[in-house]
Amino acid sequence: MASERYTIGLDFGTNSVRALIANVATGEEVATAVADYQRGEAGVIGDPNNPHVARQHPADYHEGLVACVREALAKAASVPGFAPEQVIGVGVDTTGSTPIPVDAAGTPLALKPEFADNPDAMAWLWKDHSSMAEAERITELAAEHRPQYLAKSGGTYSSEWFWSKIWHCRNVAPEVFAAAHSWVEFCDYIPAVLVGDTNPATLKRSVCAAGHKAMYCEEWGGLPDAEFLALLDPQLADLRGRLYRQAHASDVCAGRLCPEWAEKTGLPAGIPVAVGAFDAHYGGVASGVGVGTLVKILGTSTCDITVAAKTGEPLDIPGVCGIVDGSVLPGYYGIEAGQSAVGDIFNWFVSEVCEGDASLHEVLTAKAAALKPGQSGLLALDWNNGNRTILVDARLTGLLLGQTLHTSRAEIYRALIEATAFGALTIHNRLREYGVPIERIVCCGGIAEKNPFFMQVYADVTGQELFVSRAVQTCALGSCIFGAVVAGPEAGGYADAESAQAAMTGVKPVSYKPNPAAHAVYAELYALYKRLHDSFGVAGTRDDLSDVMKRLLDIKQRAG
Amino acid sequence: MASERYTIGLDFGTNSVRALIANVATGEEVATAVADYQRGEAGVIGDPNNPHVARQHPADYHEGLVACVREALAKAASVPGFAPEQVIGVGVDTTGSTPIPVDAAGTPLALKPEFADNPDAMAWLWKDHSSMAEAERITELAAEHRPQYLAKSGGTYSSEWFWSKIWHCRNVAPEVFAAAHSWVEFCDYIPAVLVGDTNPATLKRSVCAAGHKAMYCEEWGGLPDAEFLALLDPQLADLRGRLYRQAHASDVCAGRLCPEWAEKTGLPAGIPVAVGAFDAHYGGVASGVGVGTLVKILGTSTCDITVAAKTGEPLDIPGVCGIVDGSVLPGYYGIEAGQSAVGDIFNWFVSEVCEGDASLHEVLTAKAAALKPGQSGLLALDWNNGNRTILVDARLTGLLLGQTLHTSRAEIYRALIEATAFGALTIHNRLREYGVPIERIVCCGGIAEKNPFFMQVYADVTGQELFVSRAVQTCALGSCIFGAVVAGPEAGGYADAESAQAAMTGVKPVSYKPNPAAHAVYAELYALYKRLHDSFGVAGTRDDLSDVMKRLLDIKQRAG
Repeated sequence: MASERYTIGLDFGTNSVRALIANVATGEEVATAVADYQRGEAGVIGDPNNPHVARQHPADYHEGLVACVREALAKAASVPGFAPEQVIGVGVDTTGSTPIPVDAAGTPLALKPEFADNPDAMAWLWKDHSSMAEAERITELAAEHRPQYLAKSGGTYSSEWFWSKIWHCRNVAPEVFAAAHSWVEFCDYIPAVLVGDTNPATLKRSVCAAGHKAMYCEEWGGLPDAEFLALLDPQLADLRGRLYRQAHASDVCAGRLCPEWAEKTGLPAGIPVAVGAFDAHYGGVASGVGVGTLVKILGTSTCDITVAAKTGEPLDIPGVCGIVDGSVLPGYYGIEAGQSAVGDIFNWFVSEVCEGDASLHEVLTAKAAALKPGQSGLLALDWNNGNRTILVDARLTGLLLGQTLHTSRAEIYRALIEATAFGALTIHNRLREYGVPIERIVCCGGIAEKNPFFMQVYADVTGQELFVSRAVQTCALGSCIFGAVVAGPEAGGYADAESAQAAMTGVKPVSYKPNPAAHAVYAELYALYKRLHDSFGVAGTRDDLSDVMKRLLDIKQRAG
Repeated sequence: MASERYTIGLDFGTNSVRALIANVATGEEVATAVADYQRGEAGVIGDPNNPHVARQHPADYHEGLVACVREALAKAASVPGFAPEQVIGVGVDTTGSTPIPVDAAGTPLALKPEFADNPDAMAWLWKDHSSMAEAERITELAAEHRPQYLAKSGGTYSSEWFWSKIWHCRNVAPEVFAAAHSWVEFCDYIPAVLVGDTNPATLKRSVCAAGHKAMYCEEWGGLPDAEFLALLDPQLADLRGRLYRQAHASDVCAGRLCPEWAEKTGLPAGIPVAVGAFDAHYGGVASGVGVGTLVKILGTSTCDITVAAKTGEPLDIPGVCGIVDGSVLPGYYGIEAGQSAVGDIFNWFVSEVCEGDASLHEVLTAKAAALKPGQSGLLALDWNNGNRTILVDARLTGLLLGQTLHTSRAEIYRALIEATAFGALTIHNRLREYGVPIERIVCCGGIAEKNPFFMQVYADVTGQELFVSRAVQTCALGSCIFGAVVAGPEAGGYADAESAQAAMTGVKPVSYKPNPAAHAVYAELYALYKRLHDSFGVAGTRDDLSDVMKRLLDIKQRAG
């Protein structure tokens, strides 16, 4: 036991931050603690006049970080053989793109008295959509002048992303923009704080954030060029020089834990801190992502993470949000895709349409599970929150088709689940079409943990066996893994991410195997789904849809 | 007061029969009474193994008729100046097509001991759908061999209609078919009973039933020819000779009230009984239908009734269920169209999706009324029970489009109401395209009486002022009107239906005027509705629908 080594992973989510202490040899959880953000509504500061605004106060990050690390260490103290000195590395993942305006020393403006209560000076949370106009304009200008910038991000630049938000700040809060010497991503800021050097000119930036959200790519020399940024606003071109020239994968050490933060947290000073990344990417790593393995993080929305070997050819997949060298596993293209609403659609149906509470999910799941595929005659599109992959279009909406006078709410509930599964299959198919193999699927997240019916529908729709990641706190475990990588073998860690994954990750014994009869029915339904998908989602598609309702009735009759 | 004259109208509905005694000079209701049918479930005898079966026992008709007439007369007795001797005529309307197998004397088989409990020997209620296979085959055979037969009934022969039901009886209950000397429509049977001569060879058949449901038309010499019927089944060709050669409008006297039924009911023997017709058609007459006036009967489903002048040219309107000479007003083409579910769609949403009781309609109506047109971003197709007019397709189903994660049940409720209004406008437009003017719209039925919000949506969608029929019991009043017509001026009645309508019908003082701003938004939404309508309903339509959701969002943004 004396030789056990541990790493600590810090997972900054939307409403709270979690610390996880894991055993480096096995990935086993030793202790975990959560600290809720205290400001705003569950940590999110909105604007009563603009539903698109979502900000967070950096003080919540500092306070939450200290609270959850101390609590996790306190819990671990009761584990036989554990001592804080055995913690050999730190990893950090956060939401993103969540840019923070900072001064020349890297201090967030909101931590300065004059900006303390100004939401525009706080962190611009990933789900802030106030910069839709700027995002549209960036997409237009890039399409015209720098199509290569769009090719890596699915053809559309999002209002959730780095440049949209900063440009919007420039447009609506010029005093904040002027006061900001630079901007840092949340996942860059926390490691910089921990190593005691937040200087924006020198702190190590995450290639995950840079590549997926800031149009950074080594192919064109890093960030978008100044000429292009000047088309947006000359001041953005100016800002470019105060950002960064290079970004890094998470096997790079951001620095060593400084004495100040060692004391605040109780962790040993001097241990290495990994360059940060986004939570979902680390969740993929901790679930065993690799070439041929797709990780699906299933929750209110979903994120699909996989990697592809670098062949020397650039990898562009239309409609796939982000393909970034090193963003998931160092040395591979990291591929991120996802559905902008999955659990959120079922939550919407239960709370807004049925006006039920959370317990209704169980009732509807039980009734929906008693139905056969195709038996309802219903078909839905899973676009209540737009379509992230493969249409990259926030201005798409939901559709439900096939209702009769006897359609029940459980039938609708099932149709919504099936629709999200069809949406998932559409993503898988697109990846395969462009040569990204999906031989194995590992799921994690709340739905994968708690909803066997949902998982079975996904297995039946995709026709593939679905595994569930062994770890529950996958994002935090991903941080632990990179903490072990930057610690290196000499300190009891690992030489690379794959060695760490081999030791620290795994799947649960129970998996979900597709039922061939159900899969056959879903293959028919999927063909109809795809026709609706293209008809409503892809400009130029002209289909004769007059058979759709009748085919559903035929399938229903055979299923009934 | 001594000179007042009255007629009695008998309105046989799906669950009960109503008697209405009206003042012939004014149409004013003097007394009314309802008798519920006693057998089955609310008078409908189903089959636990086949949800499509819906039958009624003719004994319920006899018993209900006596009960409601006696009660109405008893109530009228307290009206100053009323005496039964002042009742100068009887009119009868019923559901249909509701054919009844009878023996050579015209006695319904179900009234004979050996068939008393055999549902196949009872009345085959209008909403019996057990003969879908026969209806499809009739449509196919007519399309191939007698396209003119289909032209008058919208291109499709329905499972609800006369020949489908009789053929199905032949196929599933040959012993009943063999025992049936003839078949009579419900609306033919009741007048025949009242006049004391049910002989199927001589009783006066309704042109409304014959023309709308039995493919009867003077153009081709009455019923479908024997050669065609033999293609269905030689025994149907045989039956043809035991049916009828001519059918009549309701200004024709079916005979005079016989002493037996005068005694049973308390009405004066010898008063004339009008040839019967379907309830909806009489509802149209009592609401003031005429050239340029469309009557909409708004309830669980809707029926649109109007008439067109006879120009010498045949009037064929694609997708319009029935165009029959004299079926509404003698001397005009009667035109019937309709939507197979309207109130039923709102009832479905409340009971099946919201799992609420009837009081939820009020709550949702109040919330829906507070929204602006276009504000929800939703668009629906009103096809939960198929589309009767103008697509004549029972195998179409519902559609709802535009849902987000914030869509409320009240928004959906409103979208469903709007969808039925768009469906109504599609019918109006089709009639106009074929030269049938709609200068004035008069509504009746439960929704017209009780739901001002619904009525305002319809006014805003159609852009036309909507009037509400003065009479509440419009179908029964239609029967009173034809009772007055067959009585004739010499007995204190009228020379024709139009004179009777001028005196006995009217509209309420309150009407619903379209709001121009709302109409402008609905014009945009209707254009999108019509594209979905054609895309999903009309074979061969190939539309690029990728703008639909975005146009709805644009409209939503402007409305919000």
